[in-house]
Amino acid sequence: MNNFIYHSPTKVYFGRGYETKIGSLLAERGFRKPLIVYGGGSIKRSGLYDTVLASLKEAGLSWAELGGVQPNPLLALAKEGIARFRAEQCDVLLAVGGGSAIDTAKVIGLGVPYDGDVWDFWCGKATPKAGIPTTVILTIAAAGSETSQSAVITNEDGMLKRGLNSEFNRPLFSIMNPELTYTLPAYQTACGVVDIMMHTLERYLTLPGEVELTDRIAESLLKTVRTYGPIAIAQPDHYEARAELMWAGSLSHNDLTGCGRASIFINHKIGHELSAKYGTAHGASLAIAFPAWAKYCYRSNIPRFAQYAVRVWGCEMDYAKPEATALAGIAATEDFFRSIGMPVRLSDIGIGEAEIDDLASRITAGGKNVIETYIPCGKQEFAEILRLAL
Amino acid sequence: MNNFIYHSPTKVYFGRGYETKIGSLLAERGFRKPLIVYGGGSIKRSGLYDTVLASLKEAGLSWAELGGVQPNPLLALAKEGIARFRAEQCDVLLAVGGGSAIDTAKVIGLGVPYDGDVWDFWCGKATPKAGIPTTVILTIAAAGSETSQSAVITNEDGMLKRGLNSEFNRPLFSIMNPELTYTLPAYQTACGVVDIMMHTLERYLTLPGEVELTDRIAESLLKTVRTYGPIAIAQPDHYEARAELMWAGSLSHNDLTGCGRASIFINHKIGHELSAKYGTAHGASLAIAFPAWAKYCYRSNIPRFAQYAVRVWGCEMDYAKPEATALAGIAATEDFFRSIGMPVRLSDIGIGEAEIDDLASRITAGGKNVIETYIPCGKQEFAEILRLAL
Repeated sequence: MNNFIYHSPTKVYFGRGYETKIGSLLAERGFRKPLIVYGGGSIKRSGLYDTVLASLKEAGLSWAELGGVQPNPLLALAKEGIARFRAEQCDVLLAVGGGSAIDTAKVIGLGVPYDGDVWDFWCGKATPKAGIPTTVILTIAAAGSETSQSAVITNEDGMLKRGLNSEFNRPLFSIMNPELTYTLPAYQTACGVVDIMMHTLERYLTLPGEVELTDRIAESLLKTVRTYGPIAIAQPDHYEARAELMWAGSLSHNDLTGCGRASIFINHKIGHELSAKYGTAHGASLAIAFPAWAKYCYRSNIPRFAQYAVRVWGCEMDYAKPEATALAGIAATEDFFRSIGMPVRLSDIGIGEAEIDDLASRITAGGKNVIETYIPCGKQEFAEILRLAL
Repeated sequence: MNNFIYHSPTKVYFGRGYETKIGSLLAERGFRKPLIVYGGGSIKRSGLYDTVLASLKEAGLSWAELGGVQPNPLLALAKEGIARFRAEQCDVLLAVGGGSAIDTAKVIGLGVPYDGDVWDFWCGKATPKAGIPTTVILTIAAAGSETSQSAVITNEDGMLKRGLNSEFNRPLFSIMNPELTYTLPAYQTACGVVDIMMHTLERYLTLPGEVELTDRIAESLLKTVRTYGPIAIAQPDHYEARAELMWAGSLSHNDLTGCGRASIFINHKIGHELSAKYGTAHGASLAIAFPAWAKYCYRSNIPRFAQYAVRVWGCEMDYAKPEATALAGIAATEDFFRSIGMPVRLSDIGIGEAEIDDLASRITAGGKNVIETYIPCGKQEFAEILRLAL
């Protein structure tokens, strides 16, 4: 077991009705004016927007707003948020939505107390030293940003999609009412399912070998999502299924599933470039990346891929040919992704051989970066992985 | 799934060597003078005491001390600690030890800023409104107090052993180096194993029915402890086994294994009275309580006890007679406790029928309290449970 530091201080209010208490939850912490960060019209159509404003009013709070956050959120809007936060003299961020709204809020939270360009933190020029707290009302089980230290943003200048881990990114509290996800379309629910599984797998299918408690927790999470994902897609208002997914989404990315292990996030790197260049939904991009990556490198750790196949997918262990079991687990994952309507090949989203070189180049910052996983992966290796996804 | 609030903000430094950094970890948070709370001579014999002082000196900190904490720690010593903390003008608590040292520190932490008698909080006369932060260097995998909101103390006046949950009880940070548990005797290691399992089972064997993710996480924890407990007992310096137990101990009681479920802690109530009256080690008292309680009430939830038997102990499901499976799980637990050297009957610790009435009376505050579990348990029901433990 590797040494690790675990710190997941976000307070979670989980279940029906907590969104109606947002005003008092902010007021009792001394906040007076949140900047509400949200996406398109869905929270207005669902009535959540009105619920939030009513609760803020009741608690005697004022507010400012930043709407229009898009999937794969853009830096320019976050910068607009920084300016608005300052001009409106807000004192806390309130993201109402999923990973895109939350991550935009996090970027604003780091940008407000910083004199320079907030992108400095994402391109490695500076390290955050302070942050305005982000609070959350979650509407999608997917990104795990509601408890994570991660924030991903896309810089329009070059369409660079980059993630940043910082303790200042941890939300102060997150409200998670599974009912708020009832209106999610099936495709987005499925994207969330893949994202949750991949946050876990990027920590699970790594070296060193078994860390039993962490492994079993990761497997618990994968099995739960495997069971309840399809139920939530078939019955969007199935409370228990939505609740299981929502809680799994948070635990998948609050670092619990990685304690004592390395994490790689190599599939996220591939996926980020697909999203940045083609606008592919994040979950869908991961559903394409994973089977290819797994097929490329499973031979480096057959026991682990076999364990995954047996414990998560219920494959029979082939003791004479563990490789067959390992492959069966990868195939089961791919079949599952396809069964919930996800693309699993680049061709499913209209991308062919002609794009491989540029994608591999982008993933490796023009061929400069090598990512250490089972096999050191540079531009050439990523091109080979991408070809397995054709 | 029930609504729940989850908040486990303690920062965990897990692995080799972190105890040598205690000075800088305190200093970087602005603390200048910890009150070090510890037990007998074991941390002096092991060299940990010297390591801690050297680290504090190196960071330019001063300190005061409160040694002599006993298992089932006593209120009088905690009160001495409150006085010393004030007199020495300390600013933070540093517990070096297990649950007894940590809980004593927590009592001091609530008592220092309070004008009245700190016992007020434990007897329900007052609610804590502030607390001095507790920090921890853990030396026993057992109580889970290093991340929990619970603190248990015994008032010598009537030998009342009582627990208190308060957000102010959550340690600020905890250092967990599995190597620091190498010197634990087998009996104490075994007591810890039982304690960890029972913190999980008191949340798992409850109503409502399945909350899949929480259940599977609880089962993960139980299986891990089942596997590594005996290894740690047989090979005290087995790093991986000590590490699995140590992390399981924290996760068993930081509320993760109870999210979305009720928790009962009825076995703890029985155990606390055994400890208070006879000085029985906490884990040993739970090993006696559980089999009796489980046999008394498993019929109220046979599916759940059967799930426990199958998933945790690998029992074969008897689909025609699920009751047989449920009983097999209880028997497997009892056999396991016995196999690691724990008492599983009152007679194992020299207690007979003559004591039953008084014990049942103590558990129910003189017959006044009824604990709602599957079956409402008052004095008569506790007497019946205790008879099953004879």
